[in-house]
Amino acid sequence: MAEKLNIGKRIDCLDKGFVRLVDYLGDDGAIVQAARVSYGKGTTTKRRDRELIRYLMRHRHTSPFEMVEFKFHVKLPIFVARQWIRHRTANVNEYSGRYSEMKDEFYLPNIEQFRKQSEINRQGRGEEKLDEKVAEEIRQAMDETQRRLFDEYHSFLDKDLARELARINLPLSVYTEWYWKIDLHNLFHFLKLRTDWRAQYEIRVYAEAILELIEPVVPLACEAYRDYVADSLSFSRNELLALKEMFGGKTLTEDELKKFGIEGLEKIEFDMKINRINNQT
Amino acid sequence: MAEKLNIGKRIDCLDKGFVRLVDYLGDDGAIVQAARVSYGKGTTTKRRDRELIRYLMRHRHTSPFEMVEFKFHVKLPIFVARQWIRHRTANVNEYSGRYSEMKDEFYLPNIEQFRKQSEINRQGRGEEKLDEKVAEEIRQAMDETQRRLFDEYHSFLDKDLARELARINLPLSVYTEWYWKIDLHNLFHFLKLRTDWRAQYEIRVYAEAILELIEPVVPLACEAYRDYVADSLSFSRNELLALKEMFGGKTLTEDELKKFGIEGLEKIEFDMKINRINNQT
Amino acid sequence: MAEKLNIGKRIDCLDKGFVRLVDYLGDDGAIVQAARVSYGKGTTTKRRDRELIRYLMRHRHTSPFEMVEFKFHVKLPIFVARQWIRHRTANVNEYSGRYSEMKDEFYLPNIEQFRKQSEINRQGRGEEKLDEKVAEEIRQAMDETQRRLFDEYHSFLDKDLARELARINLPLSVYTEWYWKIDLHNLFHFLKLRTDWRAQYEIRVYAEAILELIEPVVPLACEAYRDYVADSLSFSRNELLALKEMFGGKTLTEDELKKFGIEGLEKIEFDMKINRINNQT
Amino acid sequence: MAEKLNIGKRIDCLDKGFVRLVDYLGDDGAIVQAARVSYGKGTTTKRRDRELIRYLMRHRHTSPFEMVEFKFHVKLPIFVARQWIRHRTANVNEYSGRYSEMKDEFYLPNIEQFRKQSEINRQGRGEEKLDEKVAEEIRQAMDETQRRLFDEYHSFLDKDLARELARINLPLSVYTEWYWKIDLHNLFHFLKLRTDWRAQYEIRVYAEAILELIEPVVPLACEAYRDYVADSLSFSRNELLALKEMFGGKTLTEDELKKFGIEGLEKIEFDMKINRINNQT
Repeated sequence: MAEKLNIGKRIDCLDKGFVRLVDYLGDDGAIVQAARVSYGKGTTTKRRDRELIRYLMRHRHTSPFEMVEFKFHVKLPIFVARQWIRHRTANVNEYSGRYSEMKDEFYLPNIEQFRKQSEINRQGRGEEKLDEKVAEEIRQAMDETQRRLFDEYHSFLDKDLARELARINLPLSVYTEWYWKIDLHNLFHFLKLRTDWRAQYEIRVYAEAILELIEPVVPLACEAYRDYVADSLSFSRNELLALKEMFGGKTLTEDELKKFGIEGLEKIEFDMKINRINNQT
Repeated sequence: MAEKLNIGKRIDCLDKGFVRLVDYLGDDGAIVQAARVSYGKGTTTKRRDRELIRYLMRHRHTSPFEMVEFKFHVKLPIFVARQWIRHRTANVNEYSGRYSEMKDEFYLPNIEQFRKQSEINRQGRGEEKLDEKVAEEIRQAMDETQRRLFDEYHSFLDKDLARELARINLPLSVYTEWYWKIDLHNLFHFLKLRTDWRAQYEIRVYAEAILELIEPVVPLACEAYRDYVADSLSFSRNELLALKEMFGGKTLTEDELKKFGIEGLEKIEFDMKINRINNQT
Repeated sequence: MAEKLNIGKRIDCLDKGFVRLVDYLGDDGAIVQAARVSYGKGTTTKRRDRELIRYLMRHRHTSPFEMVEFKFHVKLPIFVARQWIRHRTANVNEYSGRYSEMKDEFYLPNIEQFRKQSEINRQGRGEEKLDEKVAEEIRQAMDETQRRLFDEYHSFLDKDLARELARINLPLSVYTEWYWKIDLHNLFHFLKLRTDWRAQYEIRVYAEAILELIEPVVPLACEAYRDYVADSLSFSRNELLALKEMFGGKTLTEDELKKFGIEGLEKIEFDMKINRINNQT
Repeated sequence: MAEKLNIGKRIDCLDKGFVRLVDYLGDDGAIVQAARVSYGKGTTTKRRDRELIRYLMRHRHTSPFEMVEFKFHVKLPIFVARQWIRHRTANVNEYSGRYSEMKDEFYLPNIEQFRKQSEINRQGRGEEKLDEKVAEEIRQAMDETQRRLFDEYHSFLDKDLARELARINLPLSVYTEWYWKIDLHNLFHFLKLRTDWRAQYEIRVYAEAILELIEPVVPLACEAYRDYVADSLSFSRNELLALKEMFGGKTLTEDELKKFGIEGLEKIEFDMKINRINNQT
């Protein structure tokens, strides 16, 4: 059995968090092994393994990727944990504020993260930063509030209040920890959603750290994931009609796109896709 | 099709929360219908339906109970939501603090909930209340903190900070809302864990409200759930050896129980079970 | 509450099978209702509902679609059931050959289904039919074998052999029945995979019947599913490089495509996509 | 990292099947490690690890057991595979009769397996064997049928019929293969159901082989599983009323049990439990 890579390796995330690769089961070879039980035997070379893995990814034959499993130890703010836990096909053991005292660790954003609501992404912040002085004021206020809340938490514990109740006014910025275990297929799904530019910055940082940790373990699968999933683009039925015109070298006007049903937010998204294609190298 | 029961009915929970039954699919009849496809046809009467449902529950034939589905609208504090979401076999749509502003609603416990850490339940509060004056002080402090945190949240929004960042110092006591959909088998599992005395009081309140809402829809299934699951007791291999002695009318000393490997926390738990049996009517 | 559509409606599939819509929970309105709890309130019109549903589908915001649930009664050959059951996020109650006698019903394919292995789809049959006389011979042989196997099964039962053992030589073509319950998001995933031309014909027939049964219940969701999922096309990173050239009106040679890493099976698949675009209306 | 135990070890099952342990992630230590993240740190000894694992199992704190994952290679008859696959919380890659030719391997039961339907277990065979001559006749008939079906399958392939259609009259006794990956919590659930005396003999054989393979990897978890799950007994609310009387040394008559609602099949099951207690050592 080959030596395991990256076990115990830890990548720091945000100001006090991290992701650490605890252990894993299987690698690129395990994907091929599982696929071959379906497709029948045959001699195998590195090149053929790569082809098979790419074929599986391209055709969304997801079950062989489920044969690889990763386990991480993660330290993260609770508001990030709340987004993360929505991925249900994973196993979790979290630090419990009922059993144990919460620690004095809170997420305090870097100054450049203090930005305005985005115009095009209704969920998140945009590129436009707050005035630096205002940002600094908010940051300081957040810091003070976090200290005060922790002091209050401890004063409640000192008065013998049960932990499960003393903690209820701790903020969503407090750090928690968990062990998180997930198979590679579901991990790729997590990564696709959480490395997306629409995902909140604070969870994107973790998703990118995870991709970095697993890449040496499953390099062929990660390459296929980038080529066929992360860096791929999908076009709707209406957009395909537009592409047909563009193959002729035509540039479509806003009115012409509207005729194909591409308008409003969809128009913006279509333009973004075309831009990405034109700038791709 | 029979008229649907309890649709839209809402039970208030804690100080500002609720559970509302939005809709459901199937009833006791649907359980029987699904079971009969497995076990073959046959005439059916109310009495035979009850027997069949009890047989299924007793033998943990869980799949027919999965054929019934309930959908609830719930308003709950975030620390309760975090325990609740650990049940992964359910569908959830939650209010998003990235899309929308959080509302000025926080959970402020009743004065009698201010209790000390439990001696036997390492997770939660016990029966012993705090001194009433101390409790009142803590409660008032919590209330003030909640107001201050909400004001600060709004001051951040007023300074144009993106919602997803402005909210990170809101406390775990803030209310959120979600739609929650789950099949009856998994709902019974949720209810068993969350009506247990070891569960945190604040989630128990919701679990009990849910049981009340579904009972008229699936009365036979709920009766079987109580008889064979909620009110049943399980005895370990060691405890069965002790029971054998007790059948002879013998009362076992602490030393005799220890010989069977029943000591420490297990001894306390065994005594609790025997007490429950002796007090059962 | 609006009257429910298509309840009890049954579509015959293959020679002796069917799909019947038993019941469902929710409709297009339930998707909107669930999404609005996340995105905040607001007046709603038919047009805005359609836009919201299309937005959700386009951005793979899948959880609101999970708020709709469908229950079907299906009669299907066992080899189809074995493919179907691989979709794990559904509830199933199947007829049991341990409890009940299997019935004298077997799938006997139509004569035009007797085809050769496909050249491009390694999994399935292609377009090329067998010689009609040969096909007829095989069909007759299959029919006779099915009769003989059923007679033998009954002779074993007559000799008092337990059902669970008497059945083991029944063929994969024997019909079974089940109740199958699934939420709309997972159903769309099932439909995408099982209406694909690479899926085995015999399961495709069922998938298409299901789409027909649900369409009147969730017309807006089905429309969005077709536009953004079923009839969409996805292009890999390499294919996007090729598209970039084609926007200039260029036609790419085999060698030029190879330079972009598009060769072999991927070349065939790329050509199929471009053809689909060029023929789309 | 400790050397892995039992990797590659294979246990033969039935006449031509097997289970082979391909790989695993974690062991008893991984359960403790995950639990400690919830309950807070602390020094750990072998004895304390055992106590913690037993506490987790006793209280059905299942998530730490999900942190261990096992992967098996299994060869099994299709009718066993059909029961097995009902456990949805596992990953599977199965040999495909669409891609590859099925092999000439069928399950032919041993002569002592030819038994009559059970009187008390409505699902399966009982203890009573068929007359040996009759059993031998059936066995021989089964064998001949299997040969004939395989020959016919090959004659269809020889006539160029696509594999996916040629196979439909192969019997449920034909062997298939798969890779199967599951976490320890769900594996224990599988084992509890499939080692039960009501489970079909042919799947029980596999379940017992699996338990044997994992025991050296997670000895403390397996011990706790036996003590608190496999060898435990659960008593319904009504049965607890009966136990209360029995603690006084009383023996309950059929009429007295009936007064507690224990009659019919439940009476038989209650008697079986009491017998097990009285015979336990």
